[in-house]
Amino acid sequence: MIIDIHGHYTTEPQALFQFRDKQLAGLADPARRPTTTDLGITDEQLVQSVQRQLAFQKERGSDLTIFSPRASGMAHHVGTEAVSHEWTRVSNDLIHRICTLLPDNFVPVGQLPQFPGVSPKNCIAEMERLVKDGFVGVNLNPDPSGGYWTDPPLTDKYWYPIYEALVALELPAMIHVTSSCNPNFHATGAHYINADTTAFMQLLQGNLFKDFPDLKFVIPHGGGAVPFHWGRYRGLGLMMKKPPLSEHLLNNVFFDTCVYHYPGIRLMKEVIPADNILFASEMIGAVQGIDPETGHYFDDTKRYVDQLPDLSEADRHKIFEGNARKVYPRLDKMLKAKGL
Amino acid sequence: MIIDIHGHYTTEPQALFQFRDKQLAGLADPARRPTTTDLGITDEQLVQSVQRQLAFQKERGSDLTIFSPRASGMAHHVGTEAVSHEWTRVSNDLIHRICTLLPDNFVPVGQLPQFPGVSPKNCIAEMERLVKDGFVGVNLNPDPSGGYWTDPPLTDKYWYPIYEALVALELPAMIHVTSSCNPNFHATGAHYINADTTAFMQLLQGNLFKDFPDLKFVIPHGGGAVPFHWGRYRGLGLMMKKPPLSEHLLNNVFFDTCVYHYPGIRLMKEVIPADNILFASEMIGAVQGIDPETGHYFDDTKRYVDQLPDLSEADRHKIFEGNARKVYPRLDKMLKAKGL
Repeated sequence: MIIDIHGHYTTEPQALFQFRDKQLAGLADPARRPTTTDLGITDEQLVQSVQRQLAFQKERGSDLTIFSPRASGMAHHVGTEAVSHEWTRVSNDLIHRICTLLPDNFVPVGQLPQFPGVSPKNCIAEMERLVKDGFVGVNLNPDPSGGYWTDPPLTDKYWYPIYEALVALELPAMIHVTSSCNPNFHATGAHYINADTTAFMQLLQGNLFKDFPDLKFVIPHGGGAVPFHWGRYRGLGLMMKKPPLSEHLLNNVFFDTCVYHYPGIRLMKEVIPADNILFASEMIGAVQGIDPETGHYFDDTKRYVDQLPDLSEADRHKIFEGNARKVYPRLDKMLKAKGL
Repeated sequence: MIIDIHGHYTTEPQALFQFRDKQLAGLADPARRPTTTDLGITDEQLVQSVQRQLAFQKERGSDLTIFSPRASGMAHHVGTEAVSHEWTRVSNDLIHRICTLLPDNFVPVGQLPQFPGVSPKNCIAEMERLVKDGFVGVNLNPDPSGGYWTDPPLTDKYWYPIYEALVALELPAMIHVTSSCNPNFHATGAHYINADTTAFMQLLQGNLFKDFPDLKFVIPHGGGAVPFHWGRYRGLGLMMKKPPLSEHLLNNVFFDTCVYHYPGIRLMKEVIPADNILFASEMIGAVQGIDPETGHYFDDTKRYVDQLPDLSEADRHKIFEGNARKVYPRLDKMLKAKGL
């Protein structure tokens, strides 16, 4: 089977946006606060809202999408910690409902109720709730400030409570920022890619996986700049007297294939071991158009993987399915329970 | 001839560091301020200090290095605007002396006396001084805050005075940040690469070159993540209804070859037109070791260019010499005056 590990719910019904408007308006005028977190969205509306994703799965040939709330929607920097908690629960609950309605197509990953300057401990209760609802992973924002990077690096003990919970709950984390409130950083064109690169370099500098050998991180968007600069990172690791990156990081750090042209995917496969590459498209995500150079959607990343020369059947299986089942053990158990 | 457009003076005599210590100590205790900007470094010491660079030029087969002060040393965020001015003059004067002593090996590029929150107008006098001293370009820091990105994006009118001066003085700017005071960003492993990616995306979002058709920017380190995500950037440009990137940006934006492995350089040449690639190694810079996979220095980037299959003689000439003479018109004039 073909598992797309990176899909966000970017086709939300208007009722969700209306709730969010009221929630944020309530910061200025409590009278405007939503009176309920029941959005009034029916199951039929939810199923209807993901028809494009289902059509793309069929057209492009993927079976299952690991599905989480819109990344730019998380906006941890907006409002208050309480707002972040409520918004997170509402957003995750929609994902849960969709995945329950369409269990053969979507598997849930949750956002976390992070807030800048607030200990990630505040996320643990939501993580426990997610696990009870069948979620198989979370998105962890390394910069809850939204582009000012005011919290500590991922290797700081500040983050350890969340890592303890991730390991205990058998959840991997995709390292994924949200929208940027810093005008220097376009969200999908700079902030996302920078965060991927930054997270990897933090992990390279530190020794986090000595403390958490079972912790698993997925760095999306092909790892930001990392594969393109693989020589730089190997060289910096040597200068810092770190073990080879394969030992130092690659038991714990994985990259997805959200790289929207064939030369990028080819380079990635050339420098990153197949064991560390997970198929993903982020559809329907950052780049939604058709590439005039190919006549195909930019984010139809399966085509790029399919074009790889000399991709062995074993590596192909790892990239499309095996690595996902390894990195997301709860997904593997869920699939096995279905006889898959 | 082979021109390396990106070298920093990273082998400075101790006297420079001693000056800097005194200068910064003077912020806390004026009695410690240096009494003179004469560092007491002799010409012989300067020539001695760049022997490794000269040896690398010979061994690796480059002829001329475009040479600027240590990038991480600029540290625009440290001290005061006055400190930045003094430090800039001292740093640029050393570059000027080296290039005067060894005119066949080094051509000068200057740092600017930027300071966070201070209009870039404050740089114009130094730019005029640099031109009188034969400098052929400058390094422009898009984030004088050193990792907090508190100044406006490069497309903001805030920066226009500097662009007017660059065009009037026929100077290109390399977009190059300095050290990071944000613990999230390792300087050479995250901040540099992020800044490259960020600058490109800012330019993609804006229409700066409509206002400054003659402005030329070099984005170093292979353009950060940009070539690896070229499909993403082409797609984002389409979504923003921008002209094709070749028209929108590539008359004004150039990338260097500071990418420290062959697969990266190959990808770059595949997606970026040869007209926009300038040979560079950043030696002696971020990554100084020998790649155990090849037995050669990581930053011996000429080897990677030499390995490119099907590189036409015309493209080779552009990458190694022609584009540098086009982007740095004062360099071209200088070489022509020497009959080169």
